[in-house]
Amino acid sequence: MSNTTGQLFRVTTFGESHGPAIGCVIDGCPPGIAIAEGDFAHDLARRATGRSRHTSARREADAVEILSGVYDGVTTGTPIALLVRNTDARSKDYAAITRQFRPGHADYSYWQKYGIRDPRGGGRASARETTMRVTAAVIARKWLRERHGVEVRGYLSRLGEHAPTGHDWAAVEANPFFWPAAGDVPALEAYMDALRKSGDSVGAEVTVVADGVPPGWGEPVYGKLDAELAAAMMSINAVKGVEIGAGFAAVTQKGSEHRDVMTPQGFRSNHAGGVLGGISTGQQIVVRTAFKPTSSLRLPVQGLDVDGNVVDVITTGRHDPCVGIRATPICEAMLALVLIDQALRHRAQCGDVGAVSPRVPGGG
Amino acid sequence: MSNTTGQLFRVTTFGESHGPAIGCVIDGCPPGIAIAEGDFAHDLARRATGRSRHTSARREADAVEILSGVYDGVTTGTPIALLVRNTDARSKDYAAITRQFRPGHADYSYWQKYGIRDPRGGGRASARETTMRVTAAVIARKWLRERHGVEVRGYLSRLGEHAPTGHDWAAVEANPFFWPAAGDVPALEAYMDALRKSGDSVGAEVTVVADGVPPGWGEPVYGKLDAELAAAMMSINAVKGVEIGAGFAAVTQKGSEHRDVMTPQGFRSNHAGGVLGGISTGQQIVVRTAFKPTSSLRLPVQGLDVDGNVVDVITTGRHDPCVGIRATPICEAMLALVLIDQALRHRAQCGDVGAVSPRVPGGG
Amino acid sequence: MSNTTGQLFRVTTFGESHGPAIGCVIDGCPPGIAIAEGDFAHDLARRATGRSRHTSARREADAVEILSGVYDGVTTGTPIALLVRNTDARSKDYAAITRQFRPGHADYSYWQKYGIRDPRGGGRASARETTMRVTAAVIARKWLRERHGVEVRGYLSRLGEHAPTGHDWAAVEANPFFWPAAGDVPALEAYMDALRKSGDSVGAEVTVVADGVPPGWGEPVYGKLDAELAAAMMSINAVKGVEIGAGFAAVTQKGSEHRDVMTPQGFRSNHAGGVLGGISTGQQIVVRTAFKPTSSLRLPVQGLDVDGNVVDVITTGRHDPCVGIRATPICEAMLALVLIDQALRHRAQCGDVGAVSPRVPGGG
Amino acid sequence: MSNTTGQLFRVTTFGESHGPAIGCVIDGCPPGIAIAEGDFAHDLARRATGRSRHTSARREADAVEILSGVYDGVTTGTPIALLVRNTDARSKDYAAITRQFRPGHADYSYWQKYGIRDPRGGGRASARETTMRVTAAVIARKWLRERHGVEVRGYLSRLGEHAPTGHDWAAVEANPFFWPAAGDVPALEAYMDALRKSGDSVGAEVTVVADGVPPGWGEPVYGKLDAELAAAMMSINAVKGVEIGAGFAAVTQKGSEHRDVMTPQGFRSNHAGGVLGGISTGQQIVVRTAFKPTSSLRLPVQGLDVDGNVVDVITTGRHDPCVGIRATPICEAMLALVLIDQALRHRAQCGDVGAVSPRVPGGG
Repeated sequence: MSNTTGQLFRVTTFGESHGPAIGCVIDGCPPGIAIAEGDFAHDLARRATGRSRHTSARREADAVEILSGVYDGVTTGTPIALLVRNTDARSKDYAAITRQFRPGHADYSYWQKYGIRDPRGGGRASARETTMRVTAAVIARKWLRERHGVEVRGYLSRLGEHAPTGHDWAAVEANPFFWPAAGDVPALEAYMDALRKSGDSVGAEVTVVADGVPPGWGEPVYGKLDAELAAAMMSINAVKGVEIGAGFAAVTQKGSEHRDVMTPQGFRSNHAGGVLGGISTGQQIVVRTAFKPTSSLRLPVQGLDVDGNVVDVITTGRHDPCVGIRATPICEAMLALVLIDQALRHRAQCGDVGAVSPRVPGGG
Repeated sequence: MSNTTGQLFRVTTFGESHGPAIGCVIDGCPPGIAIAEGDFAHDLARRATGRSRHTSARREADAVEILSGVYDGVTTGTPIALLVRNTDARSKDYAAITRQFRPGHADYSYWQKYGIRDPRGGGRASARETTMRVTAAVIARKWLRERHGVEVRGYLSRLGEHAPTGHDWAAVEANPFFWPAAGDVPALEAYMDALRKSGDSVGAEVTVVADGVPPGWGEPVYGKLDAELAAAMMSINAVKGVEIGAGFAAVTQKGSEHRDVMTPQGFRSNHAGGVLGGISTGQQIVVRTAFKPTSSLRLPVQGLDVDGNVVDVITTGRHDPCVGIRATPICEAMLALVLIDQALRHRAQCGDVGAVSPRVPGGG
Repeated sequence: MSNTTGQLFRVTTFGESHGPAIGCVIDGCPPGIAIAEGDFAHDLARRATGRSRHTSARREADAVEILSGVYDGVTTGTPIALLVRNTDARSKDYAAITRQFRPGHADYSYWQKYGIRDPRGGGRASARETTMRVTAAVIARKWLRERHGVEVRGYLSRLGEHAPTGHDWAAVEANPFFWPAAGDVPALEAYMDALRKSGDSVGAEVTVVADGVPPGWGEPVYGKLDAELAAAMMSINAVKGVEIGAGFAAVTQKGSEHRDVMTPQGFRSNHAGGVLGGISTGQQIVVRTAFKPTSSLRLPVQGLDVDGNVVDVITTGRHDPCVGIRATPICEAMLALVLIDQALRHRAQCGDVGAVSPRVPGGG
Repeated sequence: MSNTTGQLFRVTTFGESHGPAIGCVIDGCPPGIAIAEGDFAHDLARRATGRSRHTSARREADAVEILSGVYDGVTTGTPIALLVRNTDARSKDYAAITRQFRPGHADYSYWQKYGIRDPRGGGRASARETTMRVTAAVIARKWLRERHGVEVRGYLSRLGEHAPTGHDWAAVEANPFFWPAAGDVPALEAYMDALRKSGDSVGAEVTVVADGVPPGWGEPVYGKLDAELAAAMMSINAVKGVEIGAGFAAVTQKGSEHRDVMTPQGFRSNHAGGVLGGISTGQQIVVRTAFKPTSSLRLPVQGLDVDGNVVDVITTGRHDPCVGIRATPICEAMLALVLIDQALRHRAQCGDVGAVSPRVPGGG
């Protein structure tokens, strides 16, 4: 079930970068959620390429067609199929690399696994697939918000060596980087312009948070909330690391420093990132994800072809110099998809009732 | 299915820290693997407490009884049930905290989720559960070694601020820390002695690797090898972060630096950590895991009780000052469990045949 | 995962009878199977309505569009999405029953479950969904045939009180009933003409068989081959009973009569229907399925509306007087889908090697 | 996951007939159910052999040990492991058939699948495994009763050619056959005595019903309530057929006869067996299951050995002349396990709220 995520809110995606379409089927969606085809546009635009010079020039319409599961404007509980036609695929860009393995790409591993691969635009391994994650998450976020008051947000917390000099949620949507400090943006733009000109790429880090998650979501011991978040983030193209709360900084922390003290007024800190024992505590859920630099560079590199010959590989397709720039909406989507799934699983086992007392406010 | 890991090599664990027993059921194990009850002792001893002064004083026999699935000394393909009786549980140590929530512990989140919890020794949230992960992995490792020549190893790569000053696999098993640099051990011992005396704890980082993994294991896009490794590691108690290959260091790398060049003689580097597009490349699989400092301290801390009152919490049970010290065998176990599961899934879809040519040696 | 069937060859279907489209996603398909859009037409025509006066007059083009997972004419191992647009839906026929519950229909149970239903043409509960089962099974049957020499066939073994007076496979495809005795067909036609004129409907029984299944497919104890066949058949609209081999006749059999004697030349009988202990024996797999008479009748009947009022229900849409008539291809499809899934699961656990000796020919 | 049944109330069983123990792990059980080790005795005694001369003479203590998941007398939401030691296994009875394949048995199919089998007492293929189904269902039945008022009951509805001459629930528990007509019992006893003396065996049919199931349980289209009931029953040893409601009798019914008319006072009939479109209607759930005659007979029969030689097979172990006699509690157990699983799945997707109006009383 490698193309399905979730156990109860099950999203199955399909489609190749340069195939006729991409899409998904959502199975297990609660009935009664109001959904229209226009509801997807905002989130898809945030993820889309072609909106600034800092992302790939590919410009897709990303028009979502609802094929099933919605009647009279609301979800019916039956599977929701969502379809997006590919409209701006330029497969000829890939003719040269049809028989080559690009270093750092999935070309070689797909070839080794399946004995065949669709080389056009990266095929199934393209980040185009994440379009459907964002699409499916629109419905998940709506349910989380309306039923539980849960809000999922995110921002770019590292762009190469750059770190934000401040944090202002209002700034995040006002620049093409999802950067939380408006004053840093000119420097980032200059940095990206230089990088693009050089033909090289760079890594990035995205932070996503969820506010309003009630205590009790998450299933120990193998379905822990943080375990599923780690898998969800790592399943995104180009991700090499995931942290919850203090993350790797916990390695050098003392226990007396790390443990978050609870008071009747709330937690005093949030090193846990909102998860203890794999179950939400009511605090903010905090997840950080590391993105590698894309390997599709104009800079030539030595590679191999399918006959084992050494060749010079030059990638001429349209690519992002930093895939992390567009990754914030994708990480948000995965966080939302994990949360709705855990919410439904919690409801299955423990019922619809709220958390028991005493309930500590999720501060800290 | 929160207490089951794996899709085809399915391990279901059960048991509380101070209950009568812990155990597991392995379903889907290939038939014909030679297994005897004595085969588990070595790996369990590596994970066990009570073997040095640097871990908890609890000393369990960890005797494994094979209840089913093995006949005439070999696995039969039917479910293998393995049972370990708890023999050194001291539940009275926990009387004081039966109605208290320890900061940084799963006490509060279990209570909120289920409305009830077994407080004795942490109940299900205890690291005692990981005994069965190591036990089940003994069989997985045997199959991986015998059938595919895959070897899984690991070491402690950070102990608080300490980093190894060298790397020698031979050193790892010769000290109680799984530390790869023999010369550093006296300093670590002094550090841990001081820490234990202070009543505090500290975090750590474990690195595990797998050699000999053929290209082709891993299922895009949600069952990627690295995604499942991330979930597997994050499902271990106290883990706050997971990295594959370059991990978070990839954030500041350039693409020209990160991409691993392939030559007919092998890969020139391994920033990918052996995984591209979620599929193994034939290189060494490299996973790093961050462990937080345990929150069970003798140092008093403010907490809440089940009635919402503020109380002073002092943990008097036997605890590890650094849970990461014993975590190397557990991380190895999870790596092995993910690998065997992916191996079987690959065989299901793509058959038993080896990888196709050209095949790049897994160097780098 | 209620709209997904199979564990490793996973087929997820979606779509309502009168929605814009129906479709499916096949995940886990082995790579390298040659598939073209024209390959589906033959099997879909066998299932389709509107081909004889004995089935519903609805006439769909049933044109299959391959959206993903096939490159250069062969499957790539990535998810295969197949789409069929609905072209002949007449939703206005259903206006009258939008707020009524038809007796014997899923109207009431869907309403109770979800609090909403799509009444057009039965919505998701329509047999239209089975189009995608037949479509997906085209690929399964191809793999089963090419790789294992397995052939799946079926016929109508009861039409109301009528039973075949002989058995000739050649006859089955030569009449609109899938009836194995050509001489009986005129009587069946007269019977169906009278039934249709009366406005009533009748039940039927379908028998499907698989030849060439090697011994060893099936997973005890809850994934038994026969258990999954039972679920697969019972998941088809209007099915009320499933038998394997002797089926209910085994109730009055003696053990000395039922047990199938093995000889080096083959089995002497096949009361088992090709399955012992949930695992195939190498004999012919035999499954019989009982279809109820459709409840969509022109004959008025008392029903209830959504406000609880008693109303007269008259179904004016286009319906089959005997849904069993078109059910043979659907039962074949489900048999094929179960077999390929079990074949892949067997390969995962036990490898690609053939059965061990002694191997009894599958006669009897 | 062949040894696990259920998606959310997951029961994994293990153990061979003559191994040291059998057991199960229940994962996903709602917290807060009061359970003690003595709660299992009543249902296990109903299933046990050795209680009358009409069943096998094997007499097991069937003492259930709770290993985990229960604290302070109630379930905690963590996995519940239940263990039953085998105490009356006589493996020497099976020495003769260690290298033989008994006709009608799983000996041959297990051998072909796994290349190895545990021949003692049928190994994993023994009906001994069903002990754990009954054990697990004790908890399921308790939850169904206490939370939803659902009662599961059953009886033997055919014993070879014999059919009950009346129906009295009070009679069922008062005879060793679960027979619903007390007056028939002497004739059945004579019949069974003669059968046992002859060394032969006979088939049987069991009917189980559930009262009080609310409308709305069941997940179309592949997780239909009736589809999962069919799989559950067919997964029991020796089952060859399953019917819901009218079952195979629907083949000869007219639609005007089959469809169950709804009135504000209730349904007028129950040909549907309580399920429409795969979802419960609120009527009584009715399932009938056909059991084949056991193939373990004292009457010699020709068979094969592992070297392919023709041999005379005589089964000398202790066996039931009619396995159906003890099957009523097992069928009840499977019905209960399917119901609790569907109840939790319904709660996950649609919430805890009751069914919507209008609600038809479940009469008929």
